[in-house]
Amino acid sequence: MDLRRTVFFVSDGTGITAEMLGHSLLTQFEGVRFDQVTLPFVSSLERAEECRERIAAEADRAGVQPIVFSTLVDRAYREVVWRAPALCFDFFETFIGPLEAGLGIHSNHTVGRSHSALDMPEYQRRIEAVNYSMAHDDGSSNVDLDQAEVILVGVSRSGKTPTCLYLALQFGVNAANYPLTPEDFDRDQFPRGLHRYRNKLFGLSIAPDRLSEIRQARRPNSRYASFDNCRHEVQSAERMMRDEAIRWIDSTKRSIEEIATTILREMRIDRHVY
Amino acid sequence: MDLRRTVFFVSDGTGITAEMLGHSLLTQFEGVRFDQVTLPFVSSLERAEECRERIAAEADRAGVQPIVFSTLVDRAYREVVWRAPALCFDFFETFIGPLEAGLGIHSNHTVGRSHSALDMPEYQRRIEAVNYSMAHDDGSSNVDLDQAEVILVGVSRSGKTPTCLYLALQFGVNAANYPLTPEDFDRDQFPRGLHRYRNKLFGLSIAPDRLSEIRQARRPNSRYASFDNCRHEVQSAERMMRDEAIRWIDSTKRSIEEIATTILREMRIDRHVY
Repeated sequence: MDLRRTVFFVSDGTGITAEMLGHSLLTQFEGVRFDQVTLPFVSSLERAEECRERIAAEADRAGVQPIVFSTLVDRAYREVVWRAPALCFDFFETFIGPLEAGLGIHSNHTVGRSHSALDMPEYQRRIEAVNYSMAHDDGSSNVDLDQAEVILVGVSRSGKTPTCLYLALQFGVNAANYPLTPEDFDRDQFPRGLHRYRNKLFGLSIAPDRLSEIRQARRPNSRYASFDNCRHEVQSAERMMRDEAIRWIDSTKRSIEEIATTILREMRIDRHVY
Repeated sequence: MDLRRTVFFVSDGTGITAEMLGHSLLTQFEGVRFDQVTLPFVSSLERAEECRERIAAEADRAGVQPIVFSTLVDRAYREVVWRAPALCFDFFETFIGPLEAGLGIHSNHTVGRSHSALDMPEYQRRIEAVNYSMAHDDGSSNVDLDQAEVILVGVSRSGKTPTCLYLALQFGVNAANYPLTPEDFDRDQFPRGLHRYRNKLFGLSIAPDRLSEIRQARRPNSRYASFDNCRHEVQSAERMMRDEAIRWIDSTKRSIEEIATTILREMRIDRHVY
């Protein structure tokens, strides 16, 4: 049986919240193939009507009801979209009523506030954290390390850079990172200049076979990418992290989100952005 | 009246989905101050019990029920957490039933699948896009520009770098960026090497007073940061983007998410990651 459904994410904003919520639900249905379409910035009746037509056309084409996940604050737009022949779930519709009752106050029903750039302090904080992480990527600068909230260490290609950027963009956290290199293993010490910031260090490790695979894609058949070298580097790095008693995790089977969240928790870092 | 509530985000995963849902709802209640606490990785009955105690202690302290937004797939954990004296909303509880009915199939009830690193192709795609964006930040390389899906141009500090990184991390999109500098304005041309990629160009502009404010924070009292210079640069950049007929938007009042989503839409770029 070939199960296949089209899913629409409809939003008065970017659609990112609707996508994230919808996606987390859809992953619970294995064996169904979901074709996903995002319809963002639905902020007029005309645009709502366009969405309804698009969804209706897809229902006709597929011969089965599409699924619609929406975050439409404005009831008028919701009513238009919901006239489409689809299985519709709206996150505001579902939760705002009970929340209002529980809090004993009315909501503002304000469109597009959920990710508004108008919260300038948060926005600035994210941008500054991105600048910080860019300036402190891959051991590129020892300046201002006292402003780092966490300093990631690990062998080349263990996931440090994406994690730092995610920490900056998502949480406004200043994150630096340093590679652990064969030179460091020979000296049997963390990179120079880091000993003062020991309590900020957090390690990333990775399974040697996975590391070798990743490095092969970059430098095929190099010593750098060979399984033996990867195993040696990973073992040396893990030994160093253990000896120096810094916290570390294995990134192999973790998503960027999981690694970043784990670091916040383990290092007791307060995020600056919600 | 000083309205204040503590909000807990409880999840068997990172908590990011619960936060996003909760946050988008809470922004609808202006005038209430929400103190936000995330309790991630609730993947045992013991940890669920810890959460219940933490929430109950907060209810005692505050003298008012906290709000709990949870994404707990496992019903047993949910039942423990929900014994806390709080206003509880669980996202799976609410939607999985109706979705199962609508689809006519049962869900897997699998914990933590929503952001699993196990989807290796998607994960790799994000990492590669991050590498690409890092290597093509701020006009740093003309190599492999044919692999760019979008090339952002704009004056220094108009938001190009965070937008490129967000496009890479969130959507797996290869995004390069080039600054538009006084030298380009004198030549009255886009940076050298970009004319071949005209159909990939997308511009970011920004209000001169905002730009001046951002630049002041970096180089106080410089000519670079002066309002007159910022106005001149912005006017020159906008004129060039108009003359060359490339698409562009004003980033001043838009969040990184909004800018990135708008670019995907305007450039008709298919995201690689959901």
